[in-house]
Amino acid sequence: MKRLQLVIGRIKPLEESGRILAQKRLNSLTKPPGSLGRLEELATWYIQVTGKIPSPPLKKVICVFAGDHGVVEEKVSVYPQAVTAQMVYNFLHGGAAICVLARQAGADVRVIDMGVDHPFGKLPGLIDRKIDRGTRNMRLGRAMSRRQALSAIAVGCELAEEEARRGTNLLGTGEMGIGNTTPSSAVTALLTGSPVEAVTGRGTGIDEPTLRLKRTVIQDALRVNRPNPDDPIDVLAKVGGYEIAGIVGLLLGAAAHRIPVVVDGFISTAAALVAVALAPEVKEYLVAAHRSAESGHRIALDKLGLDPLLDLNMRLGEGSGAALGMGLVESAVRILTEMATFDEAGVSSPERER
Amino acid sequence: MKRLQLVIGRIKPLEESGRILAQKRLNSLTKPPGSLGRLEELATWYIQVTGKIPSPPLKKVICVFAGDHGVVEEKVSVYPQAVTAQMVYNFLHGGAAICVLARQAGADVRVIDMGVDHPFGKLPGLIDRKIDRGTRNMRLGRAMSRRQALSAIAVGCELAEEEARRGTNLLGTGEMGIGNTTPSSAVTALLTGSPVEAVTGRGTGIDEPTLRLKRTVIQDALRVNRPNPDDPIDVLAKVGGYEIAGIVGLLLGAAAHRIPVVVDGFISTAAALVAVALAPEVKEYLVAAHRSAESGHRIALDKLGLDPLLDLNMRLGEGSGAALGMGLVESAVRILTEMATFDEAGVSSPERER
Repeated sequence: MKRLQLVIGRIKPLEESGRILAQKRLNSLTKPPGSLGRLEELATWYIQVTGKIPSPPLKKVICVFAGDHGVVEEKVSVYPQAVTAQMVYNFLHGGAAICVLARQAGADVRVIDMGVDHPFGKLPGLIDRKIDRGTRNMRLGRAMSRRQALSAIAVGCELAEEEARRGTNLLGTGEMGIGNTTPSSAVTALLTGSPVEAVTGRGTGIDEPTLRLKRTVIQDALRVNRPNPDDPIDVLAKVGGYEIAGIVGLLLGAAAHRIPVVVDGFISTAAALVAVALAPEVKEYLVAAHRSAESGHRIALDKLGLDPLLDLNMRLGEGSGAALGMGLVESAVRILTEMATFDEAGVSSPERER
Repeated sequence: MKRLQLVIGRIKPLEESGRILAQKRLNSLTKPPGSLGRLEELATWYIQVTGKIPSPPLKKVICVFAGDHGVVEEKVSVYPQAVTAQMVYNFLHGGAAICVLARQAGADVRVIDMGVDHPFGKLPGLIDRKIDRGTRNMRLGRAMSRRQALSAIAVGCELAEEEARRGTNLLGTGEMGIGNTTPSSAVTALLTGSPVEAVTGRGTGIDEPTLRLKRTVIQDALRVNRPNPDDPIDVLAKVGGYEIAGIVGLLLGAAAHRIPVVVDGFISTAAALVAVALAPEVKEYLVAAHRSAESGHRIALDKLGLDPLLDLNMRLGEGSGAALGMGLVESAVRILTEMATFDEAGVSSPERER
């Protein structure tokens, strides 16, 4: 907890000077002022977060945290638990959606085993930070101990610090964990004060009876564990997951090191709720990639006050939305760094301004 | 008109076989069926249009048509007319927003002088298809002759044919023309049956009195010219523009050659209204990149039944939205061509399916 407080202590609100710097530059470029809309806001945000104008291409990294969930024994997912490990291999071999979309975005993918129920051994490309072989079934008791949750957060913080040392200047979040919309819905219900029904959806595609079961399982988990919504670590430990905790740490660490983060979908946003509950300034370091098809996502985004860049009815996770969003952020930054000014291009300004 | 009929005659509805091919492939990939939402629809659309699965990277080209507008003498824009030519130079030097965003998307930019009021002479990189030095003031009479409008459409058709020969397999539209939201609003009013007020907005950023003037100018142009809304060429010739006509031709030619097109913002969509009025099947070859901040754009998109990929409050034109949209289309296509199947990756299918 002391290490966590150190990280949180480093997180500062964004400085106004970055906004002024970016705005001045944007208004000197050969386009009507403000005509690139959200792209201009993104460019401004990026400069505010980092405090400087970068040299593209950005160094982009998507961290995909993987973990298993004891609650899948309640049959809340259509996929068997083994798929988590199978997909980790798929990530490492480059065949998963996130690999394809990250290549398209020019981003590197880091795959972190936070708590997969599979002995990978030494595996090239896999970052082994396994804390346990999955959480325990939260319907029967707490998913993790408080210490385990803090350890998982610390992993995320350390990874952010490593990326800062490497010069990474745009991070994306991602995750893999069969069943992980279930803890994400529980976390979202608690931290947004919403009913379980409103924030629990079909995940990878469960049918109506399974959806009812999933809601009952979450209700049971909340009753059995009584997480304290004013204590985000308690919420995370009792009804969260290792990959979710890893993302919480990554967001905190990124904010501490002034690295802008593109947040993926519902699971990543549940993690953002925890991170922002721990340190409200974290919110300023985040942009939401997309609004997913998962019903609770909109509620979580609204709570955070994040307006997603994309709305493409996606519900895959892995960081797939983050990869697309990172392309838009980089486009925005390149506008700022590569466009000609009115003076450079010899283009006339608006007549009313002369 | 006979050449135009030949091009239109080549345009066929999309074939169901492409859809089935794409769907089968998408459902074999290591992700829950349909979980990539709109990306899966885009991939399917792409395969339906082209009839085959391509080898990425796609060969992407954005055609930026430039033309001037006699109606700017009515003071409907805040920018002087000279900016059209100045921006053409900026395009050729790589300093404009479209250049930056096209580089990010990996797309080539073609700049076509359709009717700029400036003698460029021989200029490396500029495709000289100048038909006249701008349209005439549509408030006083027709903007172009019918013959000029047909010639401009023919230019777009020829460019599409050239791109087909080059192997271009994704096109984007773009334009430059100070004042060109004015003819675009006139065209949109006529071809959607909407009041001028509803489809006329602030363009590059005019104030309230100028907006009122702009609406009056358009009303006058409609009264003076009496374009026949059932004759799209008449509409285009009387209240359109050379760059708009060039885009009309590009869309028709692309459909004839089965090249998918990402349509940019308001001006490009006005051109799409004309193209679809001439050949309804053209619509199936188009995807709308974004919903611009220009008020008439939503109405034009609704009329065409196009659901834009992005909604980023952009209003620059040039093809800036198309460049961003092309990145999403390419991401979608790469999902289809690069992702591993369940069998290849050794990932288990959903349990209910076994």
